[in-house]
Amino acid sequence: MGTVLHTVAIVGLGLIGSSIARGARTYGLADRVVAVDRDEAVLDRVRALGIADLATSSLADGVTEADLVILCVPVGAIGAVAAELAPHLKPGAILSDVGSVKGSVVAAAASHLKPENPFVPAHPVAGTEYSGPDSGFATLFQNRWCIITPPEGVDDGAVATVTAFWEGLGAIVETMTPEHHDLVLAITSHVPHLIAYNIVGTAADLETVTQSEVIKFSAGGFRDFTRIAASDPTMWRDVFLTNKEAVLEMLGRFNEDLSALTKAIRWGDGDALFELFTRTRAIRKGIVAMGQETAEPDFGRARLDAKSD
Amino acid sequence: MGTVLHTVAIVGLGLIGSSIARGARTYGLADRVVAVDRDEAVLDRVRALGIADLATSSLADGVTEADLVILCVPVGAIGAVAAELAPHLKPGAILSDVGSVKGSVVAAAASHLKPENPFVPAHPVAGTEYSGPDSGFATLFQNRWCIITPPEGVDDGAVATVTAFWEGLGAIVETMTPEHHDLVLAITSHVPHLIAYNIVGTAADLETVTQSEVIKFSAGGFRDFTRIAASDPTMWRDVFLTNKEAVLEMLGRFNEDLSALTKAIRWGDGDALFELFTRTRAIRKGIVAMGQETAEPDFGRARLDAKSD
Repeated sequence: MGTVLHTVAIVGLGLIGSSIARGARTYGLADRVVAVDRDEAVLDRVRALGIADLATSSLADGVTEADLVILCVPVGAIGAVAAELAPHLKPGAILSDVGSVKGSVVAAAASHLKPENPFVPAHPVAGTEYSGPDSGFATLFQNRWCIITPPEGVDDGAVATVTAFWEGLGAIVETMTPEHHDLVLAITSHVPHLIAYNIVGTAADLETVTQSEVIKFSAGGFRDFTRIAASDPTMWRDVFLTNKEAVLEMLGRFNEDLSALTKAIRWGDGDALFELFTRTRAIRKGIVAMGQETAEPDFGRARLDAKSD
Repeated sequence: MGTVLHTVAIVGLGLIGSSIARGARTYGLADRVVAVDRDEAVLDRVRALGIADLATSSLADGVTEADLVILCVPVGAIGAVAAELAPHLKPGAILSDVGSVKGSVVAAAASHLKPENPFVPAHPVAGTEYSGPDSGFATLFQNRWCIITPPEGVDDGAVATVTAFWEGLGAIVETMTPEHHDLVLAITSHVPHLIAYNIVGTAADLETVTQSEVIKFSAGGFRDFTRIAASDPTMWRDVFLTNKEAVLEMLGRFNEDLSALTKAIRWGDGDALFELFTRTRAIRKGIVAMGQETAEPDFGRARLDAKSD
C-alpha cells in the first residue's frame, strides 16, 4: 500500500460505486474522486451527499484525467460503456470494474481498449439488499474478499495498483482466473439469489395460502430469503444472462441433491435427513470463524420487542 | 389476559422451552415453573441458570401438579411423551405443545388423553439457529405470531387459557385448522429450511470449488442460507417426516417455478427474469412494514469492520 492516485473515476454511483467513492476519500486513496452517471437524479444525490469532487453525466469529461476508472454498472452494460470511454482514456490509465461475472465481461470490455490501457477486472464480494447512491458506506468492503482476475499478459504495475486500491478500502485481495471466479460465484452467490427469488415468487403465487399469511408467519425462515430477493433486478438479470453456463451447471447439481432429499422425505428416510442436517452446521461454523459472518442469533437482528401499534 | 396459573410444566428445555420458562417468570404468568427433561446435563444447566422452581427428569413428578403442560420436544416424540404423562395429569389440566407440525401431531397426542384433559396445540413462529437451554431468552416471542389449532369440541376455557398465556409472552395469537397450519408453515418455514440445507450440502460436495472458497466468498449471498441450515437436526428431521404431504406439495410448486426460471436463463429471456426480480421486492416490504423484519441493510448484522487478526 501507500500509492495515492491522482484521480479515480467511478462510473455508476449505486450501492457499490458510491461506497467506493466514500471509501476512496475516507481512506485517502485518491486526491480527486470523479463520479460519472447518466442519471441526473443520481448525480444530484452525489452532489448533495458531497461524496465526489466532480459529478458529471459525460463519460468523456469524467475519465479524461483519471489514473483509474472503475465501472460500477450492471455487467450487461460493461462492454458498451468500455467502448464509449476507451478513446478518452489517457495513456497508462487503468480500467477496472466490480462486476459479479468475469468471463464474458472481460471479453466484452478488453476488445475496445487501446494497448496502453490495461484492464484489471475486480469483484468485491460485498453488498446489501439496497440500491442507489444513498445506500453506500465507506466500510462496506472492510474484511471482505475482492477477487481480481487479471487477463494474461496484463501489466504487473496495473495489477499492483488495483490491488493496493482495494486493500486500501479494507478488502482482502485474491487472484484467480475469470472462469474459476464464475464457477465460485455461481455457487456462493448466483444460485443462492436465484432460489431465493424463486421461492419468494412461489409463495406469492399460491392460492391455498394468502400473501398476508406468508408475510405474517415469515419469521419461520422465509424472511431470510426475502432479503436477497430484494436485490437490484437489473444487476441480477444481467448476472444470469452473462454467467449462464456456470449457473446452469450449479443449478443442475442443486436439483440432483434436491431430488435425493425429496425422495428421502417421500420414503421417510429420517437417517438421510439427519445426516445432511448435521453436516451443514460445520460450514456455518467455518464462515463465522473466518469473520465473514456474525455469531449472534438471527444475524443479530435488532430485537423487535415493542409492538409497532 | 390476567389469569396467573398456579403451575406450568415445560417438557423439553431447549431454545423454545427455556424461552417459555424465562418468559413465564419475567412476565409473571405462573406462580411456579417446573422443568422436565430426560437429559441430566440439560437439567443441570436449568438449575444453574435458575429459570425453573423445580427441574426433574421424571415426567410423573413434573406434571402432577401442573395446570398447563407444554411439550417442547421434537414433533416426532410428542405422541410417546403424551402417552407417558397422560395418567399423571390432574383433572382439568391442559396439555399444549409448540410443534412446527400440527396435523399428525394432534392425532398422535390426543388419543392418549383422558376426556377431562383438553389438548390445545400451539405453535409460536419464532426461533433462532441456536439450540439448548442456554440459547433461550424471555423476549423471543414478543411481536411474533403464535398459531393455535384447537381440535373440534375442545373446552373454550382451555383455549382461552392457552391464548392468554401466549399473549402474556408477547405473542399475537391466531387460530386456524391443523391442516391449514401445515400448508402455511410448509411454504413459510419447512421448504425454506429444506432448500437452505440442500444448497449448503451441494456447495460442500463440489469438486471444482473448494470448501475454503465457499466459506471465503459466502458474503455474496450463501451465508444467509447457512444460518437456517445450522438449525437443530433432530427437530427438522421430525418436521419433514411428519409434514410430508404439505412439504411435497409446496416443493412441487417450487420445482415447477424453478424449471421455468432455468428455462428463462437458458434461452436468455431477460424480461422474464426482470419481471420476477421486481415482483419479489414487494413481499419483503410487506414483511418489514408488519414489523416481522428489520429494515436495516444486511439484517443490521454487526459490522465486521475490524480484521480479526
